[in-house]
Order: sequence, then structure tokens, then C-alpha cells
Amino acid sequence: MPWDELSATDGILRQIAQRDSLQPHEVGIGDDSAVVSWKSNNMVVCSDVIVEEVHFSLRYFGYSDVGYKAISTNISDIAAMGAIPDCVLVTVAGPSYSDLDAIFLGLTTACSQYETRLIGGDLSIAAQLSISVCAIGHLVDPSSVLRRDGARAGQSIFVTGPLGRSSHSLRHLRSGGSPDLLSREDLQAHLRPQARIKEGQQALRSGVSSGIDISDGLALDLHRLADASGLGFRVESLPIAPGATEADALFGGDDYELILTTSHPKQLVDDFHAAGLLEPKFLGVTVDDRSLRTFHARPLPKIGYHHSPTTER
Amino acid sequence: MPWDELSATDGILRQIAQRDSLQPHEVGIGDDSAVVSWKSNNMVVCSDVIVEEVHFSLRYFGYSDVGYKAISTNISDIAAMGAIPDCVLVTVAGPSYSDLDAIFLGLTTACSQYETRLIGGDLSIAAQLSISVCAIGHLVDPSSVLRRDGARAGQSIFVTGPLGRSSHSLRHLRSGGSPDLLSREDLQAHLRPQARIKEGQQALRSGVSSGIDISDGLALDLHRLADASGLGFRVESLPIAPGATEADALFGGDDYELILTTSHPKQLVDDFHAAGLLEPKFLGVTVDDRSLRTFHARPLPKIGYHHSPTTER
Repeated sequence: MPWDELSATDGILRQIAQRDSLQPHEVGIGDDSAVVSWKSNNMVVCSDVIVEEVHFSLRYFGYSDVGYKAISTNISDIAAMGAIPDCVLVTVAGPSYSDLDAIFLGLTTACSQYETRLIGGDLSIAAQLSISVCAIGHLVDPSSVLRRDGARAGQSIFVTGPLGRSSHSLRHLRSGGSPDLLSREDLQAHLRPQARIKEGQQALRSGVSSGIDISDGLALDLHRLADASGLGFRVESLPIAPGATEADALFGGDDYELILTTSHPKQLVDDFHAAGLLEPKFLGVTVDDRSLRTFHARPLPKIGYHHSPTTER
Repeated sequence: MPWDELSATDGILRQIAQRDSLQPHEVGIGDDSAVVSWKSNNMVVCSDVIVEEVHFSLRYFGYSDVGYKAISTNISDIAAMGAIPDCVLVTVAGPSYSDLDAIFLGLTTACSQYETRLIGGDLSIAAQLSISVCAIGHLVDPSSVLRRDGARAGQSIFVTGPLGRSSHSLRHLRSGGSPDLLSREDLQAHLRPQARIKEGQQALRSGVSSGIDISDGLALDLHRLADASGLGFRVESLPIAPGATEADALFGGDDYELILTTSHPKQLVDDFHAAGLLEPKFLGVTVDDRSLRTFHARPLPKIGYHHSPTTER
């Protein structure tokens, strides 16, 4: 598909919009803005960007993977509130040789999987490929939201899955290793991470007190949750993904699992079982002393996956 | 302010968020997503990006101008639907030396002027500065929206103000002319364009049939409106801004005035007068034959302001 920024936005986006059926009073892609019917009395909204050679590299990402990942990272922020995603707007900026067809295939594949509508966006020429997404969702119950600042001392800390798989794959790919030497599961963990929408909603129903998604590594995101809640923590157990190292699991980025805190650990585990979800893994406990933040009794550094240009590494 | 993408997002955005008072059940900047109370049963939403050396140049834009313009171009798309802006999310990607303080001053100055809340966003390192904004608003009456496809044959075409001022200034600046040689009004037309929110809403109240904002030049955006409505047009009159050329007014970008069509031209002019708004200028009429699209009886080419890297010009 030829890239012509004067017509591409209208053309491609209209093509996508035709797959969606509009409700009365809705306006789809092709006008200045989209108009969306809205029945909830709240809106959950976030925006995240991924930039070439900062968040991904075309040396091992296909263009469709880039589109997919841009959606997943944003839907993960919706999931981390215990909310349901409804629609996204996507802005793609990149060189004229970028494969827009493949990018949009990745975007729409992810949108379809997350049952989310692509309702608008923009295209621009730029020296470096970047995809900025705005995701909009809603809460089932406006008074019930998964916040970072809700944890209390003495609660159990869980994570929705084993950690470090994406980081493990990234290390392999960055060192020049062939993607073929990775299992499909390991490769997809980095290229096409999964947002934990069902887990976020189940966590809310199970009465967890706080939650955050792990985008920059367990250590950093757990510190963020502890900062917001004004607490410390003792991490006593670490579910490491097969092939990953302890450092991958602690400090690697792009896991997109959810950290959850609860006073009812058994209920959380039982509820996830009953819902057919992966059993959440116990990490440790929250403590009153916010200066006490340990992993196996030693201070856990507040560092994580640092998104800087890979060329500088 | 030091640029550190691990803390800057939280830090700067939280600083901004503190200026806003949250309603019950709302979650501000600092969590994974923002939660916003929402009372309208519709949502008007758009996303536009501006990219360094494509949509602006730091040779004559201050960093605060870039922030301001990013908001204006998006609010203009909300205005072009006759909607009221409520909130924006902003993603800034740029080199580490970018002056974030100035960018955020520009963003918040524009948000304040448009009575719009900055509720979230993202920051990333990138080789080239770009600002992607998602703007969210609502319609006063869900059944009344300013669409591109509503014009009918035999209607009058108006524009909310004289055209070509931004293009005239851009030509001057690009040719190396000093900003000091431009009037403040001319310079601001390019650096800090104004979105026509009041005009869009007044147009709806005055019963106009269609509308679009002029971001890529009158010719191109009028063709877009005519395409969407399945019509032709005869442009018989052109309000050219002082100092601008006919070509600036026809094909220059970044005017952000609104094109409006109506069967009640006198009412439109009278209503704008009564509302204290600038009198809309008559451009011409819509015609049934969609192949007939003329300016002073000669075909008007479907070309406009082409946003390509300025270095290629």
C-alpha cells in the first residue's frame, strides 16, 4: 500500500471502520472526530507510545508485531484498573517505507482479540517509527476500581503469572540470537504480550485492595505501588518463567502481568481457579514501614527496565 | 527540569494533575489509567500528532509553542464536530535535551484556555520531537453533530474567518525571515493557532448542514467535505487574510477556521453577530454535480498543504 499522508489516514482508517457497524448517532472514521455512544457514567482512559529502537527494534519485530504490541501495552493499562476496554485511537508516525498494511493488520488483530474498536487516529511521516495509542474503557461498577494506592499493611502480594519471559527473549534477540531458537511462547511474550483484562476484573470481584501492571519490571512497578500506597514490602517468593533468570524476573520489562494485593489470599486463588484463570503466584507481604522493601531479606533496588535507545546500550 | 523517562511521566504529569480537583470516583495522573466521571451519553474523540520538521520546526517554534499547537490542532477537530472539549491525553516523544518544562507550559496554557483537563499521557525518548494528543469531548445534544457529509446541493458555503495567514507566516519564516518582521497576530496564527469551539457550537445552533476544519488548506478540506457529501461546489469569493496571497488562502495549511454549509445564510450571519463572533465569510454554493468544483469558474485542484519533511522542500 503506498504511503501518502494526505489520503492514507482517511483511506486506511475508513477501510477498518467499515468492519464496524455504527450505532445511531455515531460517527465513524472519516470525519474530524469520532462520535461514540456512551452508556457508562465513567471513563477509564490512558495513552502510551512505543518508539523504534527504544521500545522495539525492527531487527526482530515484524511491522505487524509492532502494531499488536502498541495495542497490548495500552490495553494492559486499562486491565490494570480492572476496567473493560471499549475503543482505541492510534497515531502512527514513521518513514515512508514503513509497511502500513502490516502495521494495521497487527493493530486490528489485537483490537479484535481484545474486543475493542479502532475508532480513529492519525498518520504522519517521521524519521523513526512510533505508534501512540489512546485506549478508552469503562468500569463495570464506578465505585470499584483497581488503584495503585489501595494496599494496606499486612496484605498478601500476588502476581498473575511467572515473570521474566519477555526479558529473557529480548536478551537472546539483542545478542543476535535467531528468533527460531526461542520457543513460540517465549518469542510471543516479547513481540505480542497479552494484557490481563480478565484477571483485572476478576481481581476486583475478589476484593483485592490494589493493582498495577508490570511494564517496567517487577521491582520498579512494585516500588511504584508501594509508593502510592505508602507502604513497604517483603518479597519472599519469585515465580520465574522457564529459561528466565532471577534478574529477568525482577528487573526485566514488558511482562504485563498484574501485581495484586489482598487480605483474602485463599479467596483470590480459589476465585481465579473457578474462573479458569491461571493461579496467581504469591510474592510476599506488605508492611507498614515504607523504608523496608526487601527481596529475600535484602533491599530490592528501585530499578527496572530502562527504555533508552538500544543503540546506546 | 531533567529528562528521566523513568520518573518524568509520573513527576511532571502529577504536578499538572494537582492543579485539577478530582470528583468522587475519579483517578488522576499517577495510576495506570485515568478514571473520569462522565455524564454525557456520547463521546467525541480524536487523535492528531505533530512531528518536528514535518508539522513544525524548532528554528522558529519555541518548545512552548509546540505544546500549544499540539493541543490546538486536536481541539480544532473537536470544534469541527460542534462539540465541547473535556479532556486530553498527551504523549511527548523527543530527544533528551528537549525542554519539557516549556512544552508542558504550552500544553497547560492551551488546556487552560480551552477549559480542558490534561488527564494523562506518556513520555519517551525519541530521535525527533513529536507530540501526539488524544482529545475527548461531548455533544450538547447527541442528535446534533457537525458532520462532513451533511451538505446538500444549493446551500451557501461559509468560512469562519479570513484565510492564508498561517501559510503567509510560514513562508516568511521558512525563507529565513525574522519573526520580528511579522505582526504578533501573523506569527501567532502559525505558532499558536486558535480552535473555533464557539463557532462550531453556534453553527450547530444556527442549523448548518455540515462542517469541517481547515487544517490542510481550504481547497483540500472543501474537496473532502464535498466528497463526504457527494456534491460539487462553486467558490465565488475568497476572504484572504492581510499579507497573504490567493495561493496561501486556497492551499496553505493550519488555518483552523471552519467551513460551514447552510440553507439559511442570513440567519447564520445574524446569529454569529448576536453571539459576538466574527462574521462568517461567504465562499460560494454547493451544486448537485460532484464533478463541478470550481474557484472563479475554473476547476479547483484537490491539493493542499502537504505535511512532508521540511528538509525535503
